[in-house]
Amino acid sequence: MSDLLWPGDHRAGDLFSDAAIRDAMLRVEAAWSAALVECGVAPADAAVSLDQLFSAAADLDLDQLSVDAEAGGNPVIPLVSALRAHLHPTAATWLHRGMTSQDVVDAALILESRRAFDTVAEQLSAQVEALVSLADTHRETPQIARTLTQQAVPSTFGMKVAHWLDGVLDAHDEAAALTFPAQFGGAVGTLSALVELAGTQTNPQECALAVVRHAAQALGLDAALPWHVVRTPLTRYAAAATTATSAWGHIANDVLTLSRSEIGEVTEGAGGGSSTMPHKANPVLSVMIRRAALTTPALAATLQLASADAVDERTPGGWHAEWPTLRILLRRTVVAASQATDLLDGLVVHPDAMAFNLSAAGDSVLSEQRSMAELAGHEPSDHRAGAAPLLIDATLRRAQTVHRSNAYAERTR
Amino acid sequence: MSDLLWPGDHRAGDLFSDAAIRDAMLRVEAAWSAALVECGVAPADAAVSLDQLFSAAADLDLDQLSVDAEAGGNPVIPLVSALRAHLHPTAATWLHRGMTSQDVVDAALILESRRAFDTVAEQLSAQVEALVSLADTHRETPQIARTLTQQAVPSTFGMKVAHWLDGVLDAHDEAAALTFPAQFGGAVGTLSALVELAGTQTNPQECALAVVRHAAQALGLDAALPWHVVRTPLTRYAAAATTATSAWGHIANDVLTLSRSEIGEVTEGAGGGSSTMPHKANPVLSVMIRRAALTTPALAATLQLASADAVDERTPGGWHAEWPTLRILLRRTVVAASQATDLLDGLVVHPDAMAFNLSAAGDSVLSEQRSMAELAGHEPSDHRAGAAPLLIDATLRRAQTVHRSNAYAERTR
Amino acid sequence: MSDLLWPGDHRAGDLFSDAAIRDAMLRVEAAWSAALVECGVAPADAAVSLDQLFSAAADLDLDQLSVDAEAGGNPVIPLVSALRAHLHPTAATWLHRGMTSQDVVDAALILESRRAFDTVAEQLSAQVEALVSLADTHRETPQIARTLTQQAVPSTFGMKVAHWLDGVLDAHDEAAALTFPAQFGGAVGTLSALVELAGTQTNPQECALAVVRHAAQALGLDAALPWHVVRTPLTRYAAAATTATSAWGHIANDVLTLSRSEIGEVTEGAGGGSSTMPHKANPVLSVMIRRAALTTPALAATLQLASADAVDERTPGGWHAEWPTLRILLRRTVVAASQATDLLDGLVVHPDAMAFNLSAAGDSVLSEQRSMAELAGHEPSDHRAGAAPLLIDATLRRAQTVHRSNAYAERTR
Amino acid sequence: MSDLLWPGDHRAGDLFSDAAIRDAMLRVEAAWSAALVECGVAPADAAVSLDQLFSAAADLDLDQLSVDAEAGGNPVIPLVSALRAHLHPTAATWLHRGMTSQDVVDAALILESRRAFDTVAEQLSAQVEALVSLADTHRETPQIARTLTQQAVPSTFGMKVAHWLDGVLDAHDEAAALTFPAQFGGAVGTLSALVELAGTQTNPQECALAVVRHAAQALGLDAALPWHVVRTPLTRYAAAATTATSAWGHIANDVLTLSRSEIGEVTEGAGGGSSTMPHKANPVLSVMIRRAALTTPALAATLQLASADAVDERTPGGWHAEWPTLRILLRRTVVAASQATDLLDGLVVHPDAMAFNLSAAGDSVLSEQRSMAELAGHEPSDHRAGAAPLLIDATLRRAQTVHRSNAYAERTR
Repeated sequence: MSDLLWPGDHRAGDLFSDAAIRDAMLRVEAAWSAALVECGVAPADAAVSLDQLFSAAADLDLDQLSVDAEAGGNPVIPLVSALRAHLHPTAATWLHRGMTSQDVVDAALILESRRAFDTVAEQLSAQVEALVSLADTHRETPQIARTLTQQAVPSTFGMKVAHWLDGVLDAHDEAAALTFPAQFGGAVGTLSALVELAGTQTNPQECALAVVRHAAQALGLDAALPWHVVRTPLTRYAAAATTATSAWGHIANDVLTLSRSEIGEVTEGAGGGSSTMPHKANPVLSVMIRRAALTTPALAATLQLASADAVDERTPGGWHAEWPTLRILLRRTVVAASQATDLLDGLVVHPDAMAFNLSAAGDSVLSEQRSMAELAGHEPSDHRAGAAPLLIDATLRRAQTVHRSNAYAERTR
Repeated sequence: MSDLLWPGDHRAGDLFSDAAIRDAMLRVEAAWSAALVECGVAPADAAVSLDQLFSAAADLDLDQLSVDAEAGGNPVIPLVSALRAHLHPTAATWLHRGMTSQDVVDAALILESRRAFDTVAEQLSAQVEALVSLADTHRETPQIARTLTQQAVPSTFGMKVAHWLDGVLDAHDEAAALTFPAQFGGAVGTLSALVELAGTQTNPQECALAVVRHAAQALGLDAALPWHVVRTPLTRYAAAATTATSAWGHIANDVLTLSRSEIGEVTEGAGGGSSTMPHKANPVLSVMIRRAALTTPALAATLQLASADAVDERTPGGWHAEWPTLRILLRRTVVAASQATDLLDGLVVHPDAMAFNLSAAGDSVLSEQRSMAELAGHEPSDHRAGAAPLLIDATLRRAQTVHRSNAYAERTR
Repeated sequence: MSDLLWPGDHRAGDLFSDAAIRDAMLRVEAAWSAALVECGVAPADAAVSLDQLFSAAADLDLDQLSVDAEAGGNPVIPLVSALRAHLHPTAATWLHRGMTSQDVVDAALILESRRAFDTVAEQLSAQVEALVSLADTHRETPQIARTLTQQAVPSTFGMKVAHWLDGVLDAHDEAAALTFPAQFGGAVGTLSALVELAGTQTNPQECALAVVRHAAQALGLDAALPWHVVRTPLTRYAAAATTATSAWGHIANDVLTLSRSEIGEVTEGAGGGSSTMPHKANPVLSVMIRRAALTTPALAATLQLASADAVDERTPGGWHAEWPTLRILLRRTVVAASQATDLLDGLVVHPDAMAFNLSAAGDSVLSEQRSMAELAGHEPSDHRAGAAPLLIDATLRRAQTVHRSNAYAERTR
Repeated sequence: MSDLLWPGDHRAGDLFSDAAIRDAMLRVEAAWSAALVECGVAPADAAVSLDQLFSAAADLDLDQLSVDAEAGGNPVIPLVSALRAHLHPTAATWLHRGMTSQDVVDAALILESRRAFDTVAEQLSAQVEALVSLADTHRETPQIARTLTQQAVPSTFGMKVAHWLDGVLDAHDEAAALTFPAQFGGAVGTLSALVELAGTQTNPQECALAVVRHAAQALGLDAALPWHVVRTPLTRYAAAATTATSAWGHIANDVLTLSRSEIGEVTEGAGGGSSTMPHKANPVLSVMIRRAALTTPALAATLQLASADAVDERTPGGWHAEWPTLRILLRRTVVAASQATDLLDGLVVHPDAMAFNLSAAGDSVLSEQRSMAELAGHEPSDHRAGAAPLLIDATLRRAQTVHRSNAYAERTR
């Protein structure tokens, strides 16, 4: 998947592509089929494996499926109908029984969201590593700090990087706390059809819950009661994604500023060219990250609005608005994640330019220090960057917990 | 083009697709090439026709072009480079000279926007016709009006339709007032390269403006000075598109409400089915229109934000955020336009249900009328729907001006 | 009115304040009362003048009115009730008859919106004047143009100002095209109560429309049929306001960039101080304008969403969401309008710094020109800023039409 | 505080009012002053108590303070200056030393945010209680479930309430996880001035951190390193607030739908009146809650955008945009919280109407059940609402953990 109007989009691979969504829906149907059989609800010969479903869907034209999705308003109806036509009668009869279209779409969205955040978390970890190294290297590299665009007082580049790192760690925390709950509720969230299908079991209701647990487990999703019209899982993805794009947007803004021709304190590793001006090296990665940071808050708001629009046992419009919004939001987040890692890995720092700008700033930027020293009754100290060393250390310590938890995850995988 | 997660997306055809954008960019390059030659800036053998460019681009892999677009941050750089490799030396040398990437992207966006609004205007006209007919037919069909969800006082269904029509006419007015200005400004909006290319002409600056005029004319765009970092053309498209989706959203909300099982005053011509409940006929078109109406305001806001983000002579990020946002916004608008026409053309009205609900509402909904009549010192009149007949007539008269202007456009096309 | 958290808010005076809204509502009731009597619907002694209503409301505690507004969900119910308690019986009886709460709120919102745009238009005109003067003065002041934050090719500061001016002229065009339609529709938009009140007139329906026309005229509003649930008037204000804040945001971004310590090409007339750093002169007006430009698109989107949410004959929630959103949006727009005028009036331009930066940029920024000249077969020309002189002139000519229309408006006032 | 255009606003009391913000800023200054003295940075006679600051501010005109805030772009500069004029020389000299304006504004915003979430959490707990009771009472009250506006299959009202409860519990979880970190960083986040003030201490940097810890503790805030341009604390408030308004919006939408005249399954305890229609009882609380739910996502997006806009060591515009946005967002959240509690406490449920509608729905809504039973080879069961009893129980168990944690909090307070 790629997008001529969102350069870099290919970095997100096939995440949330039509094909990926179809495959995720097939996985959901297969997991459900297995669960029905395992729990004794459906007969053994009703079982369809994922391979069988992939075969059944092999000839399916995705464009046509999309077109056919309009009549009922979702892609599950034509998908199930097409699959059934390729399965033997018992399997065809039992396929999808007990679920509703919403279950399949929602579970597929969750599966793709998990894929997205797996990548995001990996990239965030890589960024933590790059930032730790940058902060450590430049903890004492003097740089003038700027407030409201104006040179303010001396600081160090390591201090700035530590702030970037704090933002990235915040994003990491949020991504790490996400859950990926299965959604299986049947037509109205009561599992009504499933309970009826389980009617010959000892306890049809308990049996229905067992089916849900089995299906969730098969998909590697968190077992969960139907959340149905309670859309918090999706709004949490939106919030976590936006926290991440804001953290990267902050970094990109600083790189854009510091790499201005007149400032020149950092440059992107490989700047972009121009179609007409051979001398230019544009901060293209930062440009593209900023693009994401500007557009994700509105997409997240759309997911919150859709959640707030919930009504009845299926929301007319609000539910449908979520699907592509989540896709666009999470693809952009994954693309920006990867670009941010590249940006940090390749960032070229110019301590000499920092020193030059600081020196050119002259005496006035030391006026705060002088007046404070005078007030305290001593000569101006050497601590021009205040408590920056301690503050940087504290953030580096915070970063280590991420390293440790990653190392642990690595060992236990 | 189609989209599994936005059923109905195929209604927008290839509008703003990667291929359509590439073609629009080729058109821009061809028009520019012709203008350069016509105005004597480039030699005659520098001319490249659109056919030649289509040939040169024939082997171009769109996915690869998208991937290559990332290095410089836009698709024009790799496109021009690929085209040049397929052209004879003089043509290759002169291709794109005097423009900048932004010119090509922006002009292509305008060309596709015009295509979008051509369709939207057509659909709005068709809707005006359908609504005029509905309003006329049902001008005296009694219906209970509802405020804040509660039955209020009697009105007519024709009155409600007249309100729908007013919204659609507002959308039509805005769409009709749009302009589609060419954008040719060179690297920083001064036409600097072009003026230099025209250096041997009597008045290079005037010559440059002539090239711009010629190219605009060849594309059928409004001749315009470079607007460059002044993004009003795009924000006006956003506003007009959203006015339209809001007008349709309003209609869809009413259809969703009035087609509730317990109300049943209208039904969609062909309701959507359910994957599990055979008896259901869902108001699918309304659901999909509402989906669009919920999501377009945030997309329009993103275009406004990008405009507000303008800085320097090319905006880092804000500019790039516009491209896919405009695509998504206008595709959704075109899809909803077409669905709204279908909705209105197929709408089934149930005057009997309206009469039943009105009658079931009982006496209380006449209490306003009674107290007013008492205050005025007469018996309650027959004007239960107030001035609805006059108000409907006034809206119908307003609608006629659209018909007349369309008829005129038809004749003069 | 002022706001500790939106410094500069006092520039909007009492626009849309609770008191101003109350007064606007009183104006609406007075105009309606006069219209009822004039058209013979109400008896002569039912007439209440604006003065009488101001007296009747004199003791009204606004806070209490706000508290009382909650029970019915709008401020009209307790206001009318309080007014009636202070009027003589006939006047009390007839007050508000034929209107609904929505009429009063909506008409008041339109009255305040007109006040807002009167100010905005005035400020935009003043800005046009300032920008014309700046563009004219600096049409040949050399300045390096920048794209994607990097120095690109030479231009002039006058060219940049001409772009600013184009944005401001776009905003002026949109503000000038707005209409301020009265809203009088009665409970469900049919004027049902009014028609019944006019029951003893020859043609009660025509009489009702006459009352509406009279009331609109008395308020100086455009006569209009009830627009009720068709919220286009408000969304157009939102679009026009946002076009303006984006135009100012663009200017502010440029001032923020160009006044960076390391660039220093412009400075605000009176920079803001710092609580700790005596040497700083912050570009405070630009900061505050940017603040507005960042926040208005989302507010405009809320108004569009509210419009899209329309349902039945009064929208539950969508309607109520509009009131404070319009207030905040238009107050911020008026504040930013005034700040933008101050910014432009006081802007200090440093041609020497522009010359220094241009010269420091070195030869590379002339590479485009050299390669174009070589391609055209001549020596690099003197037209370093391309067609900037002609482009500036064209924008100045466009600006003159505003001057002329203002002069005309002045004469005919 | 109250708002004529946001009825119910008074429920938020003086939260985030100009006066409350001023008081919060005074608290910050007092806590800082005490910390400076305690840590030996300032002399003992530099200490100013909160009472002294309240006295010093007693004559301060808030409107004038707001006006004066414009020159420097924030209210701290004129506030500190006014306070100093009322203090004895040593106290005046030391007041605010070591902080920057941003510290005071940010810490005040956090203090008010904590106040807001204290109330929100309390209301959410009350709602949990009300919902537990409703779900329990109506666990077996039959009700037709509706999807995409159409009657679907039988469920129970208790099941619907359990879904509401899940949303409220999600909101409770998010609110409970929030932290309220102090912000003290000095001009550029390095505590530079403070370190210099502590220059005669053994370890000035450690001493600076100690001052920060003391001040945070005095304010009851979480001790935290300066977060400065990393705005995650505020975006988390935005996310948590919006999760809550979405949960309430969902409930309000259902109440609006179910209380439609034609459905009548629930009614608000005390409906709102109409200015013209005596028979109406409008679902006013739901209307006002929906109003909040529609507008908060855009406000939250503005906070995310401001966070993404971070640049340098103080963001020009993005920072300033946060202040009133947070105020409006959290006031509306608190108001809606209280209204939602009232709505649930007063909700009148009509099991008879539910039974009537279910029965009127006829046989078709049982078709799913019949076909499932047939497929499973048994007669349709009595489990018409599927696993609703188990699902309700599970949600009720989840609710108990909130009760328990609240009880614990109660005991340990």
